[in-house]
Amino acid sequence: MLLEVYGHGGDLQTASERYGISPGQMTDLSANINPLGPPPGLIDKLRAAMPEIVKYPDPGHRRFISRLSERYALEADHFIIGNGAAENMALALLALSPARVGIIEPCFSEYRTLAEQFGATVSSVYGTAERAFRADPGDIERLIEETELVFLGQPNNPNGVQYPLDELHRFAQTAERCGTYLVVDEAFVDFIPEAKRQTLLPVLGQYKHLILIRSMTKFYAIPGLRLGFALAAPELVARMRSKQVTWSVNALALIAGEICLQGDEVYEQATISLITEQRELLHTGLHQLGCQTWPGEANFMLVRLPEGWTAAAVQTELGRRGVLVRSCAMYPGLGERDIRIAVKGQAEREKLLTELTAVLGGKTE
Amino acid sequence: MLLEVYGHGGDLQTASERYGISPGQMTDLSANINPLGPPPGLIDKLRAAMPEIVKYPDPGHRRFISRLSERYALEADHFIIGNGAAENMALALLALSPARVGIIEPCFSEYRTLAEQFGATVSSVYGTAERAFRADPGDIERLIEETELVFLGQPNNPNGVQYPLDELHRFAQTAERCGTYLVVDEAFVDFIPEAKRQTLLPVLGQYKHLILIRSMTKFYAIPGLRLGFALAAPELVARMRSKQVTWSVNALALIAGEICLQGDEVYEQATISLITEQRELLHTGLHQLGCQTWPGEANFMLVRLPEGWTAAAVQTELGRRGVLVRSCAMYPGLGERDIRIAVKGQAEREKLLTELTAVLGGKTE
Repeated sequence: MLLEVYGHGGDLQTASERYGISPGQMTDLSANINPLGPPPGLIDKLRAAMPEIVKYPDPGHRRFISRLSERYALEADHFIIGNGAAENMALALLALSPARVGIIEPCFSEYRTLAEQFGATVSSVYGTAERAFRADPGDIERLIEETELVFLGQPNNPNGVQYPLDELHRFAQTAERCGTYLVVDEAFVDFIPEAKRQTLLPVLGQYKHLILIRSMTKFYAIPGLRLGFALAAPELVARMRSKQVTWSVNALALIAGEICLQGDEVYEQATISLITEQRELLHTGLHQLGCQTWPGEANFMLVRLPEGWTAAAVQTELGRRGVLVRSCAMYPGLGERDIRIAVKGQAEREKLLTELTAVLGGKTE
Repeated sequence: MLLEVYGHGGDLQTASERYGISPGQMTDLSANINPLGPPPGLIDKLRAAMPEIVKYPDPGHRRFISRLSERYALEADHFIIGNGAAENMALALLALSPARVGIIEPCFSEYRTLAEQFGATVSSVYGTAERAFRADPGDIERLIEETELVFLGQPNNPNGVQYPLDELHRFAQTAERCGTYLVVDEAFVDFIPEAKRQTLLPVLGQYKHLILIRSMTKFYAIPGLRLGFALAAPELVARMRSKQVTWSVNALALIAGEICLQGDEVYEQATISLITEQRELLHTGLHQLGCQTWPGEANFMLVRLPEGWTAAAVQTELGRRGVLVRSCAMYPGLGERDIRIAVKGQAEREKLLTELTAVLGGKTE
């Protein structure tokens, strides 16, 4: 039985129960969280702010939005704050009520789950191994034409690749022409060096049907607190806001968001450098073990195990050795040999490669 | 302009901006939070648990549900955890898709807001001053017959009164007969001495259309963290769960919930005693100032100001003096002289009565 009983990585409780290893002793490469942890000082500042929990959070998220507005040089009415990126995806669906939602497989499973949860039928096109599981741009344009809302991951999860900016413009223009909403999920974009990020953010004003989803939880390593935001035209933001349950974003998450946006450049650059360096080394190490990889540009990597191995078997063997990886066997468009591995630090990479060597070498403990 | 720009009390940021007093110096009687604060030790335990925010929350809420299951002697599948009581109300609406929702005015404004937000039309019946703003039981039964889902506050906000258990049974039986869902909002029930609580919880198993909503944020004074739960038949719980966005409840809220349910009886009894005593004294003090009150049984009180005064004017005057009260002028079924005051400790009551005496005496600072 796969580890992803709730459909996602990072489920340390299930892993711990199954493998008999305490969560603290697990090397978790199944969730794509910054290996440097939260920005220096954040934990202590949140400890100091703890008495704030006796008050309601600001239902207008005003201070955090004001920081975002400065950082991204956009008026406050372009931002909506969410309880993680997932809430903003849900709000887009609730506000726009698309009957048909388009997705590009393989992709983050919540696109389909949320779309179906809120009553849409889902159409999909497929990426191909030759294009590192990007789909053909013509296929994506047809998908935009045939649906009312399309989710596109940039970089996409689990393969970690971006679409080039000129293709994104084509997609956004097609969406504008058809009245289809294009929801670009940029949850992992902060891990990519700024010069290489392919994002429509600077031209957001050109597109009335474009929603960009950002996450604070991956890069700033606070998935337990839940915080994300979306950027869109003010009219779209207002429609999403109208579906939001009051106080869905908690007070500590808002405080953490304000602190993170004060901008610790050393931490941010160190994160990006570490990921870039470690991804390359991980790629090399996995190749030497006979795995096929699509290294992409994100802080995770899609990996195809050598012939004869399954994601399920390797996940279990690694789990018993205290290493968690994400099975991708259940992703439409991928297969039973596919796993996703988070790019973390040197120690985590060495632990993974050591244990994977043992597993693929057929050794048992 | 009223203070409730987001439709609720407890908005310290707006109050602070408007009155030029820092949030920490405000006596907030506009939000109904336990004046004793969180259980002793909770803040420190949460500070110690802060490193947990680097992991995803358990999407299954398993440890907290297990504690609830022990405390309420009900199997785990009867519980759903929410990001505050409000999320559970939203999930009931999303799961059950009622075309018509019934409410009993005056009541918590989210019943109508959420119902309309998710596409229902709202029918209402009205409480009367003679019945402390309870509605006639016959009217409520007709409301249940004519709608698909009815919200009922127990004790009701803003008037703080309960319906007796025999009437609740009648409502639940009518709901069962009609196939209408009865959502009883018990967010404030923990403030009532156990012997006086009128709740259908012990007979939950008899009713397949009954949902009880509980909050952890008011009694345990953690509104900034967001935590609530609902109890219902397992089939209903499963339908609500199917509409929930993954990880909507954050990791610290779940940890806080587990700690609170360890059950500090001294703190719990002290809270109930304090509220009972202070409510009586507040009632007397307000009477002496010429106010009419409906003291009810909850940790807040509906108050009608003397003739010639408006909620808006008194709210503003008190606000300038650092005391926040909730205007009830916008509640259907209430009027422009009505306010709601939270029952807190002796210092808060004395501050309120002193400043209200000054305001109603026409004195200015």
